[in-house]
Amino acid sequence: MSEELETNADKILAEAMRMSEKIEADIAQNPKKYRVLTGDRPTGRLHIGHYFGSLKNRVRLSKLGVPTMILIADYQVLTDHDAFDKISENTKELVIDYLAAGIEPGENVCIYPHSHVPEANQLMVPFLTLVTKSDLDRNPTVKDEMAKSSIPLNAGMYTYPVHQAVDILFCKGNVVPVGKDQLPHLEIARQIARRFNNKFCKGIDPIFPEPHALLSKTPMIMGLDGSAKMSKSLGNTIMLSASDDETAKAIKKAKTDQDRHITYDPVNRPEVANLLRIISLCTDETPEAIAERIGDGGGGMLKNTLTEALNEHLRPLRTKRAELEQQPELIKKVLNEGVEKAREIASKTLLEVRHVMNMEI
Amino acid sequence: MSEELETNADKILAEAMRMSEKIEADIAQNPKKYRVLTGDRPTGRLHIGHYFGSLKNRVRLSKLGVPTMILIADYQVLTDHDAFDKISENTKELVIDYLAAGIEPGENVCIYPHSHVPEANQLMVPFLTLVTKSDLDRNPTVKDEMAKSSIPLNAGMYTYPVHQAVDILFCKGNVVPVGKDQLPHLEIARQIARRFNNKFCKGIDPIFPEPHALLSKTPMIMGLDGSAKMSKSLGNTIMLSASDDETAKAIKKAKTDQDRHITYDPVNRPEVANLLRIISLCTDETPEAIAERIGDGGGGMLKNTLTEALNEHLRPLRTKRAELEQQPELIKKVLNEGVEKAREIASKTLLEVRHVMNMEI
Repeated sequence: MSEELETNADKILAEAMRMSEKIEADIAQNPKKYRVLTGDRPTGRLHIGHYFGSLKNRVRLSKLGVPTMILIADYQVLTDHDAFDKISENTKELVIDYLAAGIEPGENVCIYPHSHVPEANQLMVPFLTLVTKSDLDRNPTVKDEMAKSSIPLNAGMYTYPVHQAVDILFCKGNVVPVGKDQLPHLEIARQIARRFNNKFCKGIDPIFPEPHALLSKTPMIMGLDGSAKMSKSLGNTIMLSASDDETAKAIKKAKTDQDRHITYDPVNRPEVANLLRIISLCTDETPEAIAERIGDGGGGMLKNTLTEALNEHLRPLRTKRAELEQQPELIKKVLNEGVEKAREIASKTLLEVRHVMNMEI
Repeated sequence: MSEELETNADKILAEAMRMSEKIEADIAQNPKKYRVLTGDRPTGRLHIGHYFGSLKNRVRLSKLGVPTMILIADYQVLTDHDAFDKISENTKELVIDYLAAGIEPGENVCIYPHSHVPEANQLMVPFLTLVTKSDLDRNPTVKDEMAKSSIPLNAGMYTYPVHQAVDILFCKGNVVPVGKDQLPHLEIARQIARRFNNKFCKGIDPIFPEPHALLSKTPMIMGLDGSAKMSKSLGNTIMLSASDDETAKAIKKAKTDQDRHITYDPVNRPEVANLLRIISLCTDETPEAIAERIGDGGGGMLKNTLTEALNEHLRPLRTKRAELEQQPELIKKVLNEGVEKAREIASKTLLEVRHVMNMEI
């Protein structure tokens, strides 16, 4: 990265952090000023990394009364996976995970697969005219993808940041809970909003807000094998849907270290620290206090403590999950109502867009 | 262009010409085997170049009973024009030109601006995943645009061939009347249809036909100033909506040459040959016969002959055009009914697409 670009990325990060703090300080008092846009790709059930990393925060925000759109990015699966045979099944599994975790769809919260909202997706066409090929070439995710993949980059992946802008802007989402790595994508959405308003809304109210990141405060949960990220494909996760026994077994195999005395030392003992943090997320104690309590109990006691805390914490979710699995009609209804509401919002936006573009019949 | 690419382009042209002949030989007998997709950008009223080059042929095909979709490419205006203030007005002018020329919207013929068909436009998202960045880089129109334009290429222009594929495939169009220069665009639509069917329709009937070009037999009408193309921006046209006097004035200024004796010699006397061809298109005589009849009458008589023939030929169209200008409600109705029918067709296709992608709720 050139120095200039790095400075620019630093500026964007600093500004994003400032705005994120500001929104966090205000959102409980003025939930209706905001609309949160968030979601997942339907590639399988969720694990505790998703749960502690984003799902719990979504539950919190929606319970504050913040209008929340949870989109299931089924089209995104096509950009970098060849498998599309389980998309419908995985979509329903996601809804079960959401509802089990405490998301309550209704007036305030809308869950929908984005492939079902044509009035939103259509914005892809005019939005593409607002970014240059160079804007897309600069995107770090696209660059990574080009560097690491052996097959030629498809245009769906190449233009994906524009489709993410569509996902955020069609509902005038102004808050997007993301990690720092997602800021370049969000920056394209912000540019598109700005350029759209500048070009098409001269002398009138802008149509699109510039969306802000709500940066996560929870440190990323590492994989149980010590990998940087929990990921089903690495087999280093604990699924929300796992049984108590499956949870215990997975934790038994978790990587720790040789030192029998348990301490919270994220730098030198990352695996142990990771397990302590997960316990902390379940019990609300500090990782340091947990470490002290375990002390010479060693890795065995650490793992037992984690198993117990996690199974205890997830028990209500898992009970609800099992019930929801028996209610496929309810899950369908949630999705159908979500789609209906999303289409209503999208149609309204599309009318405004058509009006300022002088494309009315 | 490398030799390999040139050979490939030659192959594509040869095959396109073969198929075009084949379709032309069959279409009058089996009109319902085909669906024609054609259209214009709403950048202004049509001139006689459009009329003789494409509109007359559309009228002919639709009168044969071939299902015909005429799309007004309003979004395309955004890819390379900054002006969007007259899109709605220009759309209506196009409809007036179409109807005046003899297009009869109804069960068989559908006229609609593509920005009004979200269920079609949404196909842009999955279709983008079926082409590589290299496919787009190879497109000659995109290459031209990058070479000649001083401003950075926007992603709307860059991905435009994919949107054209959407325009053709959403209604399962299998015949596209185009010039040879449009074959590379059509090739991308053909590739997308093929790749879609291969990926998503394994073991079942393919969803999309591979569309074929119907190559125009009418030689391109040159500008009255001798430019290769008639174009409003060059001021070298005769508008369909022009009065008899305006037509006479424009023709009076047309470029001819020094030789008073009129002959049909396209190679050495391109401007004279062009005027003779336009007369021929109006009267169905051969250009040679017209030239012989004028003989020593010179440029003056040539121009008078053209003025008379053209005004005569266009008289019914212009009378109807004047009537249609007084019926804005009719024009709106044509567009609204066209949009309704196009959305119906698009929704059906989208359901099929969603089914094979396993994206049903």
